[in-house]
Amino acid sequence: MSLTHFDKKGDAHMVDVSDKAVTARIARAENYIRMAPETLEIITEGRAKKGDVLGVARLAGIMGAKRTSDLIPLCHPLPITSVALELTPDPDLPGIRISATVKTTGQTGVEMEALTAVSVAALTVYDMSKAVDKDMEIGGQRVVLKDGGKSGRYEAQ
Amino acid sequence: MSLTHFDKKGDAHMVDVSDKAVTARIARAENYIRMAPETLEIITEGRAKKGDVLGVARLAGIMGAKRTSDLIPLCHPLPITSVALELTPDPDLPGIRISATVKTTGQTGVEMEALTAVSVAALTVYDMSKAVDKDMEIGGQRVVLKDGGKSGRYEAQ
Amino acid sequence: MSLTHFDKKGDAHMVDVSDKAVTARIARAENYIRMAPETLEIITEGRAKKGDVLGVARLAGIMGAKRTSDLIPLCHPLPITSVALELTPDPDLPGIRISATVKTTGQTGVEMEALTAVSVAALTVYDMSKAVDKDMEIGGQRVVLKDGGKSGRYEAQ
Amino acid sequence: MSLTHFDKKGDAHMVDVSDKAVTARIARAENYIRMAPETLEIITEGRAKKGDVLGVARLAGIMGAKRTSDLIPLCHPLPITSVALELTPDPDLPGIRISATVKTTGQTGVEMEALTAVSVAALTVYDMSKAVDKDMEIGGQRVVLKDGGKSGRYEAQ
Amino acid sequence: MSLTHFDKKGDAHMVDVSDKAVTARIARAENYIRMAPETLEIITEGRAKKGDVLGVARLAGIMGAKRTSDLIPLCHPLPITSVALELTPDPDLPGIRISATVKTTGQTGVEMEALTAVSVAALTVYDMSKAVDKDMEIGGQRVVLKDGGKSGRYEAQ
Amino acid sequence: MSLTHFDKKGDAHMVDVSDKAVTARIARAENYIRMAPETLEIITEGRAKKGDVLGVARLAGIMGAKRTSDLIPLCHPLPITSVALELTPDPDLPGIRISATVKTTGQTGVEMEALTAVSVAALTVYDMSKAVDKDMEIGGQRVVLKDGGKSGRYEAQ
Repeated sequence: MSLTHFDKKGDAHMVDVSDKAVTARIARAENYIRMAPETLEIITEGRAKKGDVLGVARLAGIMGAKRTSDLIPLCHPLPITSVALELTPDPDLPGIRISATVKTTGQTGVEMEALTAVSVAALTVYDMSKAVDKDMEIGGQRVVLKDGGKSGRYEAQ
Repeated sequence: MSLTHFDKKGDAHMVDVSDKAVTARIARAENYIRMAPETLEIITEGRAKKGDVLGVARLAGIMGAKRTSDLIPLCHPLPITSVALELTPDPDLPGIRISATVKTTGQTGVEMEALTAVSVAALTVYDMSKAVDKDMEIGGQRVVLKDGGKSGRYEAQ
Repeated sequence: MSLTHFDKKGDAHMVDVSDKAVTARIARAENYIRMAPETLEIITEGRAKKGDVLGVARLAGIMGAKRTSDLIPLCHPLPITSVALELTPDPDLPGIRISATVKTTGQTGVEMEALTAVSVAALTVYDMSKAVDKDMEIGGQRVVLKDGGKSGRYEAQ
Repeated sequence: MSLTHFDKKGDAHMVDVSDKAVTARIARAENYIRMAPETLEIITEGRAKKGDVLGVARLAGIMGAKRTSDLIPLCHPLPITSVALELTPDPDLPGIRISATVKTTGQTGVEMEALTAVSVAALTVYDMSKAVDKDMEIGGQRVVLKDGGKSGRYEAQ
Repeated sequence: MSLTHFDKKGDAHMVDVSDKAVTARIARAENYIRMAPETLEIITEGRAKKGDVLGVARLAGIMGAKRTSDLIPLCHPLPITSVALELTPDPDLPGIRISATVKTTGQTGVEMEALTAVSVAALTVYDMSKAVDKDMEIGGQRVVLKDGGKSGRYEAQ
Repeated sequence: MSLTHFDKKGDAHMVDVSDKAVTARIARAENYIRMAPETLEIITEGRAKKGDVLGVARLAGIMGAKRTSDLIPLCHPLPITSVALELTPDPDLPGIRISATVKTTGQTGVEMEALTAVSVAALTVYDMSKAVDKDMEIGGQRVVLKDGGKSGRYEAQ
């Protein structure tokens, strides 16, 4: 078994997808950012009056998804047709759970776009909250759904 | 206590750092990507002959650090003076541990640059290994060191 | 009646166009930049000998159209197939009238691309002329034609 | 009197600011987007429940300011130290009045950054509202304050 | 005979390709970077132990190909489906010979993407080696193959 | 002698320039694009009436210089203070000779910015002329002057 991003000599290349079918594709990724309970309280209260951290992070995630092929060296540029993020405060974490769903009609999957969206959204939550909490930690970042390509449907357990 | 990225009305803004001193600043962030032991073996073997996943991810992390203010909405653009990443295979994880150290001489800290570097590096490892393992998970992403600004030295416990 | 860029909870998202037909689309936008008569004279004379302000602004508008989905948070990335700008000195304004026509074969319209093109072109005229005139004003910026999608032909009155 | 962005032969160049002093600089620009009264009502109501058009536009303006030197061909790259936007519904317009204030400590002014911020913010309002109103018009875009460089303070009348 | 990037008045525009067929397209470009024999030795030895200049340059070339339409004013944005670079040390030059092959399924050719790839790769070799050799020279940069469009197959002699 | 872009283990990094002095720096690079005499004639005639290839290429070179640190993986971002390009038709080549001069006040040199400027300018000439001549060749690309840093003045012979 070998990695597709290298040729026989071991040199990196952008995999040739010219002959892959153009199909409807979807992917979903998730992560979380854990924080002190006081930080979560400031964020969730703020949504109503002091400033919408989650709204800013959602937008950053959407825009980040569009920059995926600029950031990930061997990613193909793709015409994204849909991006949506959910940011849900979870007092048990405590912190924010983030999920991103991305769609395209193209020749390769969009799991990297979904992962980039949740990455940038979580980084933005960190940036906006770091004045009150430097110990926040981002984790649980993974692909939970991928469908629409030749390799079939993938769902994380 | 309140978030600095919002004004009194709760509107987001880029914090005014015009009057902050230009000082030497450093930050270090870390994360990891956990994977099946077989995937780690393919990556570490590959380094020698089949393709250098960690070298590609390191470069992506360096370039990602330079795009931080494009990605994070309220981040200030900063003249980065140094970026270095360590990617260390850890068979006990099993997976790769990633650390990034960023420096600048400027008016704000570089912890977002360090966090962006490890984020993009881990995403790149995922991208290059996803053909053999879709269950990889990125976690433990946090700032471990920040120094050089008015708020003093921060070290994660 | 409601805005399509928000879901039922009021959260912003990139509208899902996966199921829209790929059709030939066109849009035209216009604006103007009003200036002192002396400034217009310098620009129009310059075209022949001292420097081509309108040529630089035209190019900036074309390149700006290609950056639309980077700038407008919820815009879909689109494969633009044509961009053309007209920059016409109008002594009665006095100033420059700008018009941009953009085409694509895709799933969403290109009116944002046309608006971005005239915006960036007018900003470039301002930038290049501001040493002699700081009072210039940009106005009349609107979509004048949009055609090719499901919502039919739109022409401004 | 002649344009500084051209040399003696009439060729465009990026003006040499190497010998200009590094000083604190500020600029403010404004514009408006005029719309049907019903559109304005949807936007202002939405702020509370259906989706925050003005919050998204504000963020787009802040991020747009950071892209100024990418968009305007002869603009110098500048380390922006502050960006703030005001978006104020005006029922008499009817529409939204937008104002952006940008600061830097550098060798050239930031009026192009302020103009780019209000441009991108207004385009974003258009994008998010165009499903209900295609006749919106952007106007009154101009610099209202510039201070901190050799040419002294400028205030629009 | 005239240049297609200008209209009848001599104004630059992005050529309208709306009516061109979507076909499989390929292009290959090449160049070289000539250097002192000692510099070449450091690079080729380094590949094994001191640092992989050619690996970094290959990646820069791949990423550069994706930025082509950002850099070349009148280039159409294109969904690249494959990029591969060869960097071959040539002791007779002495230096590195670089070749890039790019594919797309689109309405225009990809020779500019291939040329941009070899350009950026050669610049990266220069950047990484300039501490030991400032006299390196890049040359022989040309298109060697182009196929898939209406104008038929082109092969350099 | 070894390459500064790698650490002791051979891993690529962005060289730490934090402790280098901020000084005035300048660099000049040059290249040429050789073409059929008929192509050169079309370009030089066009300047007057049919379209200004050299003006478009000059602008692309200036904008390209600003993207250098986005393109070259280990380049430091730098606040460029001046960029100027000369594009001179040379009937003896036959073709266009291009030269770019870049300045900054910073901690590293600007030879990569000057090289990127001439690269992008030559690629743009190719793009705009390729409809009439596919055999054009870019060569002679090198640094001719570098001054202002610790390593002293460099002039190519």
